[in-house]
Amino acid sequence: MAGKVETQLKTLGITLPEAIAPVANYVPFVKTGNLVFVSGQLPMKDGALQSKGQVGTEVSLPEASGAARLCAINLIAQAKAACDGDLDRIKRVVKLTGFVASGPDFTDHPKVVNGASDTMVEIFGDAGRHARAAVGSSSLPLGAAVEVEAIFEIT
Amino acid sequence: MAGKVETQLKTLGITLPEAIAPVANYVPFVKTGNLVFVSGQLPMKDGALQSKGQVGTEVSLPEASGAARLCAINLIAQAKAACDGDLDRIKRVVKLTGFVASGPDFTDHPKVVNGASDTMVEIFGDAGRHARAAVGSSSLPLGAAVEVEAIFEIT
Amino acid sequence: MAGKVETQLKTLGITLPEAIAPVANYVPFVKTGNLVFVSGQLPMKDGALQSKGQVGTEVSLPEASGAARLCAINLIAQAKAACDGDLDRIKRVVKLTGFVASGPDFTDHPKVVNGASDTMVEIFGDAGRHARAAVGSSSLPLGAAVEVEAIFEIT
Repeated sequence: MAGKVETQLKTLGITLPEAIAPVANYVPFVKTGNLVFVSGQLPMKDGALQSKGQVGTEVSLPEASGAARLCAINLIAQAKAACDGDLDRIKRVVKLTGFVASGPDFTDHPKVVNGASDTMVEIFGDAGRHARAAVGSSSLPLGAAVEVEAIFEIT
Repeated sequence: MAGKVETQLKTLGITLPEAIAPVANYVPFVKTGNLVFVSGQLPMKDGALQSKGQVGTEVSLPEASGAARLCAINLIAQAKAACDGDLDRIKRVVKLTGFVASGPDFTDHPKVVNGASDTMVEIFGDAGRHARAAVGSSSLPLGAAVEVEAIFEIT
Repeated sequence: MAGKVETQLKTLGITLPEAIAPVANYVPFVKTGNLVFVSGQLPMKDGALQSKGQVGTEVSLPEASGAARLCAINLIAQAKAACDGDLDRIKRVVKLTGFVASGPDFTDHPKVVNGASDTMVEIFGDAGRHARAAVGSSSLPLGAAVEVEAIFEIT
């Protein structure tokens, strides 16, 4: 029987990707006590970066928000692996940190990172409501427009 | 009877604002175990951003340090809400991360973030001494000069 | 008798420095439960910053990676102090966050921060494998090329 969160994913038409392997000497997540620290995720889909460049100039706000949503989906794919496949073990999305590639005049970081925040609440309901920081980065790995990292509490 | 920390706030002449509601689909803080993760706070006062622009060019060091102090006060207002109003339940300020809007030639991030660190120690004494990172951001939400996030340990 | 990690440090020819005192009103680490939050470390050696400027333009990739390695060594020196000198009490490197001073065209943040990640795995083996985020910063304290912060789990 499909779990509650899996059912919600289906309702939303979201298919989680296979958890992406990191490209270096680190791991996609570490469990410590009831917390899972998930590595920063980029807007990857089917192995390809979907959104590249500085937000506000090279990347539009709607595209950047969509990129943040992709980051969230990739974070959840990692969290699923951390829960041995059972997303109902996620008790709370504790914290998201969203890094937005942007120049000195950009001010809409919250709107961009909302793409990740809204996705968490759509999928997990109240358990998806998290503490958050959204900040600008001069540049991100591979030239990504957005990177989001997360802390989850699991049971 | 006023608590120890509330008394210290009074001595210092600091009035905590009402905890500011976040502007999006996230929450100002999440409790997990004994930890409280507080969302990144901007130098807001009475609903208005007090310090805007890049530090070192558009915003002076003293102003930026004052902005970091405001961020700290807003963090404590959120922590108070997390403690159901009893600041004496704060056992330790665990970690501050300070993001300073700044260009490539800026080097004084520590002096800016000291505005937040000093405020924590003034108010909480030794319990206010925290781990910290201070880094530059190309830009911050609303054009803020500084953003600070925090982790508290509570009882 | 030297511990397992100390022996490995010797094999690798790495001498840990004295834990560096912070330059402001904060502390190098805070323990909370089994977690140790270590403050952001710069590529300091013998009291002097070893790598200064933007990576990709002023600082080469190999130099930046070496700077990240230095940050890792300084993080471990702090973790050792947190463990009262016994590095075998480190159960896991939970999380690294690497900030790379860089301009808008830089894309190789992961290669830079690998200098820290590889060092953790060389020294701690599987316990050194961590969650990670690598992002660009417009500038860093003292003009440093790299800053890395860490969370450790200890026993």
